[in-house]
Amino acid sequence: MIERLRKIGFAKLTSVEEALEKLFAKIKIINSKEIETLKALNWIIAEDIESQINVPSFDKSAMDGYAVVAEDTFGASPSNPKYVNKVGKIEIGEDSDLKLKKGEAIRISTGAMIPDGADAVVKIEDTEIDEDDKIRIFNPVAPGKNMAKEGEDIQKEQIIIDKGTELKAEHIALLCSQGIDKIKVRKKPNVSVFATGDELVEIGNPLGKSQIYNSNTPMIANLVRTYGGEVILEATLKDNKSLITQNLTDALKSSDIVLFTGGTSVGTQDYLPEIVSKNADILTHGVAMRPGEPILIAHKDEKLILCLPGTPVAAYVGFIKFAGPALRKMMGAMETDPRREIIAEMDKDVPVSRMGYLHHLRVQLKQNEHKFIASSVRLKGSGIITSLTKSDGIVEISKEQEGIKAGEKVVVKVLIR
Amino acid sequence: MIERLRKIGFAKLTSVEEALEKLFAKIKIINSKEIETLKALNWIIAEDIESQINVPSFDKSAMDGYAVVAEDTFGASPSNPKYVNKVGKIEIGEDSDLKLKKGEAIRISTGAMIPDGADAVVKIEDTEIDEDDKIRIFNPVAPGKNMAKEGEDIQKEQIIIDKGTELKAEHIALLCSQGIDKIKVRKKPNVSVFATGDELVEIGNPLGKSQIYNSNTPMIANLVRTYGGEVILEATLKDNKSLITQNLTDALKSSDIVLFTGGTSVGTQDYLPEIVSKNADILTHGVAMRPGEPILIAHKDEKLILCLPGTPVAAYVGFIKFAGPALRKMMGAMETDPRREIIAEMDKDVPVSRMGYLHHLRVQLKQNEHKFIASSVRLKGSGIITSLTKSDGIVEISKEQEGIKAGEKVVVKVLIR
Repeated sequence: MIERLRKIGFAKLTSVEEALEKLFAKIKIINSKEIETLKALNWIIAEDIESQINVPSFDKSAMDGYAVVAEDTFGASPSNPKYVNKVGKIEIGEDSDLKLKKGEAIRISTGAMIPDGADAVVKIEDTEIDEDDKIRIFNPVAPGKNMAKEGEDIQKEQIIIDKGTELKAEHIALLCSQGIDKIKVRKKPNVSVFATGDELVEIGNPLGKSQIYNSNTPMIANLVRTYGGEVILEATLKDNKSLITQNLTDALKSSDIVLFTGGTSVGTQDYLPEIVSKNADILTHGVAMRPGEPILIAHKDEKLILCLPGTPVAAYVGFIKFAGPALRKMMGAMETDPRREIIAEMDKDVPVSRMGYLHHLRVQLKQNEHKFIASSVRLKGSGIITSLTKSDGIVEISKEQEGIKAGEKVVVKVLIR
Repeated sequence: MIERLRKIGFAKLTSVEEALEKLFAKIKIINSKEIETLKALNWIIAEDIESQINVPSFDKSAMDGYAVVAEDTFGASPSNPKYVNKVGKIEIGEDSDLKLKKGEAIRISTGAMIPDGADAVVKIEDTEIDEDDKIRIFNPVAPGKNMAKEGEDIQKEQIIIDKGTELKAEHIALLCSQGIDKIKVRKKPNVSVFATGDELVEIGNPLGKSQIYNSNTPMIANLVRTYGGEVILEATLKDNKSLITQNLTDALKSSDIVLFTGGTSVGTQDYLPEIVSKNADILTHGVAMRPGEPILIAHKDEKLILCLPGTPVAAYVGFIKFAGPALRKMMGAMETDPRREIIAEMDKDVPVSRMGYLHHLRVQLKQNEHKFIASSVRLKGSGIITSLTKSDGIVEISKEQEGIKAGEKVVVKVLIR
């Protein structure tokens, strides 16, 4: 019986770890290009960024109030205020030449430059001013109080952004605050996305009985975009060897990564293993993972070919475990798997159908006081896209585990949303 | 002393909850428009989507094997196989007229239509075929085994996507699988973003002493994009009343939301409260939140005006607590705050400087076995953008809390990355 299974199924399944290692070993980081910082949202930075300036770049006030010599305020109290003379005013953005001597105060705004001679700022609410510009100070300040010293936040030449960071609004703000108007980022890899299958019909067309609408290229292409790649081609192909071969060889000319769904297994119309083996070098065929077992990973020089299963959830899992991380590795991203992780408690026992596989359990999360509870989204089969749309994340059950017990702590990899 | 503070500071601070409630009460959900499903990534759907078809839309095989009458397999074992006659073959996507009778089997692929008369599928690996097309079956199957019944995953007219969902790759796949090629989504609100301040210089220009580069419009504009809005204008304005007034009144003509940073407090050059009060209705000025206290929220009919503080971190916090949620509320999003939450343990005591405020503590997260540990990113001042770029998330300390104790469980709102 097992002999028969072996003949029809996979001779040997590769572990997820080993398959990823083989895949990553073939990836060369893509070239960089210069872009404007203002247009850098979601790009991966290709260089470490050093601070160009001290931050703050000058001693500045952290409060609205009066710049003073701290010593002049010592001993001040509401019942026994200290007196100083107001000798001027410095607004924010103003490059003032004013110098302050003992017994004097200069009105200063938050963010304005501290004048020479001053070593502290008294808050406006700790003062009162008389008609003749005499200031009464009701509380003492220590030297350095209510001011920010040049370079105290960031020293010049300190690394402020590490290469491989995916730039978000706050990174762009940080770069702008340094006056850095152009940066090097990694190019977006060009990706071609194919679905194969005689049963597939494109949306907008009538559906024959026994046919299904193609949902794989829209899903995979949008995952590619979400992960930072550039989709240059989306197409659905019939199960025809010469058609698939032609499309693969054409796509390899213009793409960094070619993705297929369907036709990767060992059925009578699964042509991809044969076609890919003739046109590229196969790294892995058959991974000990469910769903997603029939995945095929190959490369032609520096170009990658990943054939994901045709059932949508298996294609999704194949993407997030292999294609997505490969794409981000190619871009030099620090995080190749961008999914956030949450720790939760499983609500019920979840046995696995068969050990030896990395199982991907779709779960919903509920927050209960100070913990999250994960519940399995139990839907038959890996074709059911609603098992993804109804889920918050995926729990991986390792190949050594028989399942998860109720109350067990699990790591939930949150779906990219 | 308190009297003096009151005269200069805010007469009364509004709680975050009350300010949000007042703001949300003024928000009208924006119009919808029809777009192609294939272009719907990250748009917010404006309608509940009902299933158009049963899924699967026909009884289909879940395995490669033989469609049979289950009864014919009863009692089969490796040593005592049951025999049936192969009478045909159905490929995936093929609309077959074949009918199956007792004693017969039809070769069938995964996903192919189950022929009339069959009520189960025997897996290929549980069979052997002789030269005369006699099939030996080594294991029995119960009726319904290895097949998916029409409608078992999704019933026609069942709601499969709720309005207000932000569409991701898997939602698009689900819509496509239903043949839904056009959908209604909420328009992206038009947002104008202004920074005010005499001290601000745009990147690409030389920096005078006492000046700083503008980092607020790039940050806020990119947050608007991340939250789903359309930035129609970004500009930096000097602290000049007529200039700011002109820009506000112009922006109100074309924008759904107008955002300012800077000039919102009670300093001598904080013109926005006065300007906004003359041109719109103020809902809140001064919120019991740190950083972010001087935030000003107003509306002019259905248009919103939010003036965020000028220090970058306070502007960021003001955005994620008010402007971002307002934007998403306007788009009818189910989740107005899209940040994921993680539960972590605080590593050390964190006292708050003053109770009565909702404090926003920036933290880094480390995973330690089956828990996350949060550490405060202690950097002075709310101007320090690195306190955001170095953080993984924000812990909110409520106005009733004196701080957080080491070991206490906290909810970390993960930065949008």
